Amino acid sequence: MGSPPPRHIPEATVNRLPLYLRALVESAESKQATVSSEDLAERAGVNAAKVRKDLSFLGSYGTRGVGYDVEGLLFQIRKELGLTQDWPVVIIGVGNLGHALANYRGFGARGFEIVGLFDVDPRKVGEEVAGIAVRSIEDLDRVVAESAAAIGIIATPAPVAQEVADRLVAAGVPSILNFAPTVLSVPPHVSVRKVDLAIELQVLSFYNQRQSDSPPAAAG
Amino acid sequence: MGSPPPRHIPEATVNRLPLYLRALVESAESKQATVSSEDLAERAGVNAAKVRKDLSFLGSYGTRGVGYDVEGLLFQIRKELGLTQDWPVVIIGVGNLGHALANYRGFGARGFEIVGLFDVDPRKVGEEVAGIAVRSIEDLDRVVAESAAAIGIIATPAPVAQEVADRLVAAGVPSILNFAPTVLSVPPHVSVRKVDLAIELQVLSFYNQRQSDSPPAAAG
Repeated sequence: MGSPPPRHIPEATVNRLPLYLRALVESAESKQATVSSEDLAERAGVNAAKVRKDLSFLGSYGTRGVGYDVEGLLFQIRKELGLTQDWPVVIIGVGNLGHALANYRGFGARGFEIVGLFDVDPRKVGEEVAGIAVRSIEDLDRVVAESAAAIGIIATPAPVAQEVADRLVAAGVPSILNFAPTVLSVPPHVSVRKVDLAIELQVLSFYNQRQSDSPPAAAG
Repeated sequence: MGSPPPRHIPEATVNRLPLYLRALVESAESKQATVSSEDLAERAGVNAAKVRKDLSFLGSYGTRGVGYDVEGLLFQIRKELGLTQDWPVVIIGVGNLGHALANYRGFGARGFEIVGLFDVDPRKVGEEVAGIAVRSIEDLDRVVAESAAAIGIIATPAPVAQEVADRLVAAGVPSILNFAPTVLSVPPHVSVRKVDLAIELQVLSFYNQRQSDSPPAAAG
């Protein structure tokens, strides 16, 4: 994994780097060579001072009156996020959500390679989803060891999510992305992030209620 | 919708309110009567000063040495987010993701009632998903008018997402949640939020690469 740079980057900044990355990819696709902090800010839904501060943690300061070099900043953020290497991913739970995730083309395009799909339901084992055969959860340890899976995605119903998390931890998976609507407990050396599909709806609800004249920037 | 309060709440604060809400629901479930800004901060993944600042926009200041009243703050954030009323939601695209969203129990529990499922594929029309019959996209205008649908969720493939957004806008839906990996253009009076399932993976990638001794707070 190379030697990590010694700089400390605040967690809130890390959380915004993918937003800047997305904005920069759009800029690159529209053949923009440079981008201003104001433009990045608008697309990421933050203010320009925050963009400049965040990027300064990466040692990136842009050029006054010109902005940031799009390709250079893209490379730097990708490197910082560890996206210049591929990360093997396993998905546990091959219901509708697991299917949707396995078929989601945004993962592979961004260096997240799905190396295993697992389910407890014997009727699902052997089924092929997105070109990958679903395996029994009993095979998890072996597949994680062979593939060095770095991220486990939990797409199971809530009642079994903790058990699945325990299995991922035991297999040595260092990071978990949890789609199940439940709180997981894991040892401190394991990173967990939770995706709550209702959160974005709640934010929209706010703007609906306000019937605001200044809705949020249409980021997308 | 009642008269909106005149206070201005910054967009970044609005985006964090659902995180505080989730933390408060957990506190309420574990019978906590009060919660400190530090505790809220840890659960929401921000710092305590930011929590106090955010909640001050709601006119909520807590009590020194005691913290915030859980039930009171819950009510206030729900009211602020417009969650004391139900919002009718339509979902367009009944593939795997649409199925997963229609079956996601977190929506109904939080006041988002699915009033319509739509697809262009005639083989899907009439199929029942989560107790709701899938309708032809041709029925969208009528259903939106009858149900006063406030939020449209786009769960289609990327190439047709803009066309679906145009139909939602034409039908009068004021807010769109876009799961398709594409940028939508909508008139300024329409709110759009984009869910990018790869963003959380990118954040995990950062921590994997760093093999950090201080991983992000296990929020769940």
